[in-house]
Formats: sequence, C-alpha cells, structure tokens
Amino acid sequence: MKIEKKDILDIESLSTEEIELILDTADSLKEISTRPIKKVPTLRGKTIVHFFHESSTRTRTSFEIAAKRLSADTVSISASTSSIVKGETLADTVRNLEAMNPDAIIIRHSAAGAPHMLARLVRSSVINAGDGMHAHPTQALLDMMTVREKKGRLHGLRVAIIGDIAHSRVARSNTVGFLKMGAHVILAGPPTMIPQRIEVLGAPVTYYVEEAIKNADVIIMLRIQKERQQPFLFPSEREYASYYGLTTENLAAARDDVLIMHPGPINRGVEIAPEVADGPYSVILDQVANGVAIRMALLYLLLGGPR
Amino acid sequence: MKIEKKDILDIESLSTEEIELILDTADSLKEISTRPIKKVPTLRGKTIVHFFHESSTRTRTSFEIAAKRLSADTVSISASTSSIVKGETLADTVRNLEAMNPDAIIIRHSAAGAPHMLARLVRSSVINAGDGMHAHPTQALLDMMTVREKKGRLHGLRVAIIGDIAHSRVARSNTVGFLKMGAHVILAGPPTMIPQRIEVLGAPVTYYVEEAIKNADVIIMLRIQKERQQPFLFPSEREYASYYGLTTENLAAARDDVLIMHPGPINRGVEIAPEVADGPYSVILDQVANGVAIRMALLYLLLGGPR
Amino acid sequence: MKIEKKDILDIESLSTEEIELILDTADSLKEISTRPIKKVPTLRGKTIVHFFHESSTRTRTSFEIAAKRLSADTVSISASTSSIVKGETLADTVRNLEAMNPDAIIIRHSAAGAPHMLARLVRSSVINAGDGMHAHPTQALLDMMTVREKKGRLHGLRVAIIGDIAHSRVARSNTVGFLKMGAHVILAGPPTMIPQRIEVLGAPVTYYVEEAIKNADVIIMLRIQKERQQPFLFPSEREYASYYGLTTENLAAARDDVLIMHPGPINRGVEIAPEVADGPYSVILDQVANGVAIRMALLYLLLGGPR
Repeated sequence: MKIEKKDILDIESLSTEEIELILDTADSLKEISTRPIKKVPTLRGKTIVHFFHESSTRTRTSFEIAAKRLSADTVSISASTSSIVKGETLADTVRNLEAMNPDAIIIRHSAAGAPHMLARLVRSSVINAGDGMHAHPTQALLDMMTVREKKGRLHGLRVAIIGDIAHSRVARSNTVGFLKMGAHVILAGPPTMIPQRIEVLGAPVTYYVEEAIKNADVIIMLRIQKERQQPFLFPSEREYASYYGLTTENLAAARDDVLIMHPGPINRGVEIAPEVADGPYSVILDQVANGVAIRMALLYLLLGGPR
Repeated sequence: MKIEKKDILDIESLSTEEIELILDTADSLKEISTRPIKKVPTLRGKTIVHFFHESSTRTRTSFEIAAKRLSADTVSISASTSSIVKGETLADTVRNLEAMNPDAIIIRHSAAGAPHMLARLVRSSVINAGDGMHAHPTQALLDMMTVREKKGRLHGLRVAIIGDIAHSRVARSNTVGFLKMGAHVILAGPPTMIPQRIEVLGAPVTYYVEEAIKNADVIIMLRIQKERQQPFLFPSEREYASYYGLTTENLAAARDDVLIMHPGPINRGVEIAPEVADGPYSVILDQVANGVAIRMALLYLLLGGPR
Repeated sequence: MKIEKKDILDIESLSTEEIELILDTADSLKEISTRPIKKVPTLRGKTIVHFFHESSTRTRTSFEIAAKRLSADTVSISASTSSIVKGETLADTVRNLEAMNPDAIIIRHSAAGAPHMLARLVRSSVINAGDGMHAHPTQALLDMMTVREKKGRLHGLRVAIIGDIAHSRVARSNTVGFLKMGAHVILAGPPTMIPQRIEVLGAPVTYYVEEAIKNADVIIMLRIQKERQQPFLFPSEREYASYYGLTTENLAAARDDVLIMHPGPINRGVEIAPEVADGPYSVILDQVANGVAIRMALLYLLLGGPR
C-alpha cells in the first residue's frame, strides 16, 4: 500500500485515511528498531538528503536513523556548510540538489512555507521537518501515534495544548491533526502567546491553564522557545513556571490516566516540573521512539514502491 | 579498464586519452542515478574521506552521493571539526588520515597546491575538489562531459569563459581542458579580473564580453566570488551586470544552439540574468547531474580494480 | 568471546584479562583494514551514535571508520548542531538519543565524568572517547596495543610520559593502563604541569626530562594543549621546547630500541622536534592505525554477540 502523494508538507493536506495509514504503518515498522539487527533492505539504493537550516538533535537524528534502518543512503547538509553562505537562493540550492537525483529531501527551515515552495520545484519527495512557526507534521504524526498506542483511539479524547501557541508549529500541526481525527482540543497560554483569530482552527482557547488541564486525557506542553522571542513575552521564567508550568499540583485536575507529552527539548522547571517530566504519566520518551517509526513509515510510504 | 594514475590533481596532468576514458566512463555510469535502485556494489568496502576546508554544498554532496552509489563508505571532515583548530599542520592531519587506510582522500583547500603536496605524502588516491585559485579538475571534466553530451564533440567548438578569470580555478581548469580536447577558448572579463600573462594558457583574451559571445558554441559564466575579493574589483554589482553579465540581449550574438553553463552557485542578476539561467540554452542543472557521474567515474577508475 | 561489560569508561574499571582480550581482538581485526574490501558484516543493523562535544579529527574519524568497517550504521552529533544550544541538559539529550534505540553511544565531552553519568542513564553501551582531563581509555588501549605489537610484551618495560601531566587525560589513562599491565611508568613535566598528589597513581614523578628518558623503552610525549591553558603555564613555547621537548640530543639517553609515541595532534618544534616525530623510533602513525583496530575491537566485543 502506498500513499498517493509526492510530499508530506503539513497535516492539513492529509486525509484521515492517510493519517491512519501512516500510523498503522508506523506501528508495524516500530518493531524493527527493537530487533538485534535493526535494518531492512526496503529502501536500498534510495538517496535521501537531509537539509537542515535550523539546529536540531532529535529531528535530524530521528530522520537519519529512520533512513538507515530502511537501508537508504543519506547525505546531510546544514546551513553553515551550504552555499547559502555564498548567497545562493534557496530555490537554486534545492534545484541543484534535485539534479543529483535524490529520492527525498527532508527540509527544516526558519521560513514558513519554504518546504511547500520547494516541493513544487522538484520531482523528489519533500518532507517538512519543521518550517518557521508554520508546521511540523512529523511531530504531530508521532504525537498522534503515541496517543493512539496508549489510549487505543484518538476519537473523543480531550487534548490540552499549553504554552506559547503563537510561536509553535507543533501546536498548529497538532491542533489540526487531533481535530481531524475526532479529538477535542483546547489551547491555553498567556495572552501574549495566543495569536489573534486562532479559534478558526476549531479549538477553544483559554488563558487559564487549570481550565485546559481539567479532565484532559492528553496534555501537550510546549517548549518556551527562548530563541524565537524578542523581547521575552512574559516577565520571567519563574513567573511563567508558576502560572503556566505543569506541576504535580495542577496536574491533579486531569484524568487519572492522563498522558503528558512534550515535543522536546524540555526546559526543566519552566514549562514542566522535573517530577512531571520524569513521572508516571509522561510519555515524552515514547514520543521520541515513535518519531523514528513515523519517519520510517513516511519514507516507506513515499519511496517504498516503484515510482 | 583503469586509469594509470594514483591521483586526479589537475587537468594538465591528464592525457587526452585519459580525459576521453573518464568521459566515456561517466557517460555509462550516469544511468545508475536514474534507476529505482541507484546503487552498484563496485566499491563496497572502500573507505573514502571527504576533507573539505572550504564550504561547499554541491561539490561535497556530489562526491558523497557518487561514493554511496558505488557502495563505498564515506567519512566527512570539515575545517571546523578538524584538528586544524588545534594547530596541527595539514601534512600531519593527512598523514594521520592515511594511517587509517582510506582508499581515497577528496580534498578541497583554500591553498593552491595543497592536494599536490598531499598526494606525494600518501599511498591513497587524492582527488582535488578545488584548491585555491589553482584548479578544479572535476568541474572541468563535468563541463566537458556536458558539452560533449549535448554537442557530440568538443573538437572545433568555440568556448567563451567570461568573468573573474583571475580568481577562478574553474576558468583555469576549463581553459586547459577544452584546449587540450581541441576546442577554441576565449577568455573575457574586466581588466581588473584578468591576470597578467594569462595568454600563456593558449587562449586569447578580450575585455569586451560581446567579442567573446560572438559565434560562441558554449558560454561558461563564472561566479563573482565576492568572498575572495578584497577590495571589490568593480564599482558595483549593477555595473558588473550591465557590462559583463549575460543577458538575453548580448546572448543574441552567440550561435543558435549555444550552451549556457555556470559552475554555481549563481548570483542571479549579477553575472547572469535570471531568464538566461533558467532559459532554453541553459544546461546548468545538467552540469550538476553530470557532476555525480564524473565523480563516480573517477572513483571507479581509481579504486575499482585490485590495487 | 565477549567482554562482560556494558560500557568502556576508563582503564581503572578494566581487568588485566579484559585488557588482554581487547588487545588480542584488535590484533586480529587489524588485518581487515588492509584488505581490498575493508568490511565485514559483523555489526550490520547496529546503530552507533557519535556524540562529540569537543572538536576531534582523529578520534571521531577513527571511531566512524571502525564502525563502518564492521558494517554498523552511524549517526554523528556535534555540540554545535545539537539541542545543547537550546538549553537541554546533557542527560535529557542522551535519554532522547537512547529512545531511538542506538546500540552504542560514543561520547567525547569537556566535563570529566560525563560518560559515567550517561552510562548509568542508558541501556546502550557507552564508550568514553575522552572526558575533560579525566580519561581517554581508547587512547591508552591503542597505545598499549602499539607497544605490545612492537615489543612483544608490556610487562617490565620502562614507560616515560612527558609533558603537561596535569591537563592530560591521556597521561592519566596510560599511567593506569601500563602500570596495570606490569610496566614501570615515570612521569615528567614542569612543576606547573604536575598535579598535586599524582604519585597516588603509583608512578614516580620528576621535573627533569632527562631522568625520565634515561633507559626508557617507551616515551609518550604529551601534547601542549594550548586550548586548555589559561594563563599559559610556561613562559614561551621556545622555552618549553628547550627544557621539555624531545630532541635528537636528549633522546640519546633512552634505550637503543626506544619507541616514541604521541597521541596527536603534535605541535612540531614544541613538545617534539620534527626530526624525532618523523624519525626511525617514532610509532606515531602506528598508533593511529591501531586506533581503528582498538575501536573495532571494542565495538565488536560490546555489540558483537546477541544481547
């Protein structure tokens, strides 16, 4: 079975059937990573370019490991080593890569929409590994995979997404994804971190974290992205932690079997208390493990068959 | 068939028969990059070190992809991660690499002659991926491959090389290569960018771009290498573009089936107008595709047989 | 045969039997690197993460080549591309890597003890590739391998370690290793570079380099690690060279079949005269070649069997 798409650019453009196919595929591929020999020959002879314009440990490493476990060849390009420093346009850099016949280009870029533009320029499959404040579809897919794995379903669950909604591509992609799969989503954060007209996504908004946590099946805490905020949108980290951080105390209002999630890297003691991040409800490391499986699934579905 | 050389350091040291063998081999290997499974086992178990002291997207990526499509193992070293920062001499760094038994070392270095010195120090094959303002033999080979592929021959063609001749290793290697293969080469650029005594290479020089373009079969536009010029050798980019840039207007004097080439990365609107770079005569992206094939050919010819 | 350990963190925690097993294994794997096809399928499907927080050419390259010659998949993370720049703790970064199911994590870190902490956090094997001024066990193992290969034994040899003892993890690991294997070790360096109470390791100390060299079977010259010294611990490089550098003159007091070693990168003309580094007693490049063999041996012994 294959996905009838060239690219994975955002959650908006995936149907519920496609999302289910991706999650099912990831479920079945996940086991490969626990074998003594963690490798299948599925994508032997495929060339995958990882093109990362923003620093990333987990996403780049996750994609690289996914590619290698499927036996693909990988080449990695970062902003600092690329011709970007010589003034080449992004479109030209990517057209040049394309001329080397890669099968997929995985791109992370600080400019929202960059992957979409590139996808139109090239025959290769493009996977968006995060673009500006716009989308991070593989994160949303691994988050949905993690919830479905633990809860058995997505439909009808109450999902709270808490933090810097305005600057978070994770928030945006997860909101769209969970709503699409029939979950209820509530967004919470300080007024300075809630964008205007965010309700059009279909999720209610609150400035009170307690309201979002109440009866939540899933809580997704967002990273305070210090590197994106200028000036800082709340008086201090301590103040943020006391009003919007997830702690043992405010967590008590959630459902007994709540799942705590975070896209990482976490700021311990800011948006999440260490005892919550490391506690029994946390599935943060499951998210990371499932990230490899989701990326294997996408590469397999996009590149696995004859083209 | 093999090439009877340990290293590929410059075009000067290749015979016309060797150049033809390389181009023929590249022609036949090019097809591998268009297969669903882009990989042959030819260089399995070979170790190739990519040692890049200058930033490069296309050349490094091209070499890496070439190596992987031949199933070689690759290790990449850049100036910033290397012991150069600890004060080790280049010769010592390379002797150390050599002690790990690589089969080939691909080197790009800002110092002219660095690859030649290294080649004498090591048993491994050394391929020059660009040294200072001296040579860039793989670029010249891929350019000749591209022209031969489109025109069916090199002999007798009129090749114009236009731009910053003084600072361009591409100009030098291409001039030597095309002349060796029987083409006519004419060099053009502003007086500040034409080195003294360049005529000894055997190509006439003009300061008038129109003269070079007239009746050209091939036009190779050089990159304005802003990063190498201090102070800048012409008053402004706009002025450079108006006097020396390739435009739809001045291109009209070339032959009807002219080929437009550029080693990349291009400065759109400076040395080449966007509509020319993207126009029907441009083979800039063919050059990139052929770059992979040329590098596969060199690795195959140097390492492919028993040593 | 396997080593009954999860991790290789320091020489202290290895028994003499384990050290001998590692050296024997390295001796037998060394031959692979001289074959036309330098690759065995032993670790196919294993994932090895190279996590380097300090710049390194030889150690990182050596580990990568070792992994690839055993057919393992490798992923490389450096400090500059990692989430460290986003404020993630080292423990969280490593827990995240662990969630992707690597088989081994190779870590170099500026903080002494970092690898030990990580080893307790993860199921994966951890190999210390150098931590602060603490330990560099793979360097000591490759040094012992080199001496045993040349001398046929370690027991009873007189080993002089000369230079900046205080800032050298190489000095510390080698002192412990050679003493454990029955060699005599003498440490020499300027008073400002000899740590307090270093005698507890079991090696006598002298401030006179001639005393250490006298009758030495093996001389290990340490690198003057300019990047670690603030302020500089001796008046000038020239003065250091004249008092503590190894030269043809002071080398005459050593045994006729002395071995000259250096962990690299060398500062020519500072701690070692060029004619000594390149001379007949130098086994500096043998050390590098054996480094690949030792790392292959460790990966094989830790990961080679069913776990």
